[in-house]
Amino acid sequence: MLDILLEMRDVEVRTLCDLREEAIRDGLALCEKRGRPAPLVTRDYRDVLRDPEIDAVVNMTGWPSHVGISRESVLAGKYTAVEVGCAYELSECWGLIDAYEQTGAPLMMLENCCYDRREMAALNVVRQGLFGEIVHCKGGYLHYLTEGELVAEGPQPGTYDTRHYRLPEYVWRNCDQYPTHELGPIAKLLHINRGNRLMTLSSFASKSRGLAAYMKDHVDPSHPYHDARFRQGDIITTVLTCAGGETIMLELDTTLPRPYYSRNFTVRGTKGMYSEERRTYYFEGMGEEIENNEREFFEKYDHPVYREYAKAQKHGGHGGIDWLVLRAFIESVKRGVQTPIDAYDTVTWMAIAPLSEISIAQAGAPISFPDFTRGKWARREPVTRGKYCLEEVCEDPDTPIMPL
Amino acid sequence: MLDILLEMRDVEVRTLCDLREEAIRDGLALCEKRGRPAPLVTRDYRDVLRDPEIDAVVNMTGWPSHVGISRESVLAGKYTAVEVGCAYELSECWGLIDAYEQTGAPLMMLENCCYDRREMAALNVVRQGLFGEIVHCKGGYLHYLTEGELVAEGPQPGTYDTRHYRLPEYVWRNCDQYPTHELGPIAKLLHINRGNRLMTLSSFASKSRGLAAYMKDHVDPSHPYHDARFRQGDIITTVLTCAGGETIMLELDTTLPRPYYSRNFTVRGTKGMYSEERRTYYFEGMGEEIENNEREFFEKYDHPVYREYAKAQKHGGHGGIDWLVLRAFIESVKRGVQTPIDAYDTVTWMAIAPLSEISIAQAGAPISFPDFTRGKWARREPVTRGKYCLEEVCEDPDTPIMPL
Repeated sequence: MLDILLEMRDVEVRTLCDLREEAIRDGLALCEKRGRPAPLVTRDYRDVLRDPEIDAVVNMTGWPSHVGISRESVLAGKYTAVEVGCAYELSECWGLIDAYEQTGAPLMMLENCCYDRREMAALNVVRQGLFGEIVHCKGGYLHYLTEGELVAEGPQPGTYDTRHYRLPEYVWRNCDQYPTHELGPIAKLLHINRGNRLMTLSSFASKSRGLAAYMKDHVDPSHPYHDARFRQGDIITTVLTCAGGETIMLELDTTLPRPYYSRNFTVRGTKGMYSEERRTYYFEGMGEEIENNEREFFEKYDHPVYREYAKAQKHGGHGGIDWLVLRAFIESVKRGVQTPIDAYDTVTWMAIAPLSEISIAQAGAPISFPDFTRGKWARREPVTRGKYCLEEVCEDPDTPIMPL
Repeated sequence: MLDILLEMRDVEVRTLCDLREEAIRDGLALCEKRGRPAPLVTRDYRDVLRDPEIDAVVNMTGWPSHVGISRESVLAGKYTAVEVGCAYELSECWGLIDAYEQTGAPLMMLENCCYDRREMAALNVVRQGLFGEIVHCKGGYLHYLTEGELVAEGPQPGTYDTRHYRLPEYVWRNCDQYPTHELGPIAKLLHINRGNRLMTLSSFASKSRGLAAYMKDHVDPSHPYHDARFRQGDIITTVLTCAGGETIMLELDTTLPRPYYSRNFTVRGTKGMYSEERRTYYFEGMGEEIENNEREFFEKYDHPVYREYAKAQKHGGHGGIDWLVLRAFIESVKRGVQTPIDAYDTVTWMAIAPLSEISIAQAGAPISFPDFTRGKWARREPVTRGKYCLEEVCEDPDTPIMPL
């Protein structure tokens, strides 16, 4: 993410802050490689928050610290971007809201899947009304992490800590720990917090067997997690109900063998549907033998933001979505406007994990979803009509989201 | 179904019973066409139940009457087969159980999807342990019925009644009305009622928009359902938890435009998975680019019952599964043994609709699943080891399930 920021010539990376020396070292090397001046360096994030020259903070810390640092950053009046990931506790979510309502400093989760070509094209089709009234959406994180991120990736010498820090989370907790990749785009298209809101969450965990089986068969007995008892269920199924009558089904599916084919992003309306799993657009009356046709619809329905992006030939990680989400944040900072994913969105999405944990512990009891807008959702302008939304910015050629 | 039975030379169709004259007329014509003697004819099912020459009853009536007639048939001591479909009320389920425990006459739901090549091959792989420990299954009825069965198919002259009688059900009720096509095969592979049992059911309904939108745009205003208010939600999501820690996710998806591609039958284990939606077998370590490979696995893993069936070159409706499920029933009658889908299976599957209705009405509250075996599930032999199971019969060459 640093490398993407360094490529943006209108962004000055003023300070690098990390507890890990190798992260600082690699960061400084990147700055040099990109021909950018060496930034300040600190281990104390408060140095960043105290610096009046800094407009915006990009918080890429792990789950145990990302909420607290984000809150202090918002309280310090900085535009704050935070990497994906949930809160542990609902009180953390309210802490972020209170901070935001006190200072007004925007808080944006860097939910890159909101900027994926597929999700944006479907959003575009939804906004044009071509699917009719939207009734149901689904999606999930369907990525077998055991061999990669969870166990083998990035352990530091002498330890088995991993970059993603997810392995201990899977020991302690049992919930949808990673819901935002599809909840983000779905919440946007259903106008959550802007005319609609999440009402209940129910969550269900299968037994936990995948990680233990993997450890037994593939990992050295000296591995500190070799004999761990994992609480995290292998498949977490979560159902959300919305004030508008829509339902959303989310899945977390990361510890049983599977190919990573899609996030099963699905949109269902009275006139048509999109299925990422089948790469298919379907409209009423098309007949039965319809499959794998998304490419032909992209030409017609690509989102204006994606078209601009493709023209600009930018890339960055994960097929460009990291660039896009960071750029959307930077544009908001430069113009002094609200971020397209705002504090209410960010906090709503972060609440899934603790709500899911509570529901699972109660055999799937429906849990009331907090209204983090405290009633404002009913009167807030839909994103599509708002001043600061992605679409609106793009439709105005004088203020494109990506002025390069 | 009658035609399939008439082709079986060891089956005598002794009586045809129907309230609809045209059904009787068509049935008699079929008998003649197949060169079989004309059966007795009646409008009163009690004539059938009173006839001591009749060994078995195949009950193909609609949902409002199929439970009551089945119960009387079991009480009359007849082997009883019943077409798929649920109960309206849990008390009906208990009525069937009480009847069965009183007379011991087997009661078998004709759940043809238990005999589908895909479901049977996956069952075979599960029983061989190749998926490891099974953790999660899913499936659903994902078939856009609006244009076909629900509205246009088979209306009688002067009325808009349909053969499937589902349209009024969709006015009155809001639940998973049609869960058994995938619950059946899933319950079998998870040993439900034989070492495992369903513990809770939670069910969620999206708003109901598809049918009303269809009626508005496509149906003549004189149609009696043109202005109907449908209670049935368009997408019903149901999650079941099992005593063994497995979860099952079911969907009913029949009133929004979509292609009927699969029933999304999915089996997930610690060592591998099957996905009907992607036509894919996946085993640990296969890598990422795995898709659409089921054909090559069928050769290795086809179920013995399917192999015998393919050899015999029988057909019948729905690609042969109607023949297979009827034949399994007939074989059980001939040998005087338990049916492979028994009264506990039948009633458990029939309970989904009323439980789903209760849960939906309570915002997805988890409902305790009745134990229709009253504790016997823990001590009942697993199907795979039992005397009367499909597999066992097939493994024994002297008593194949299809001795033609």
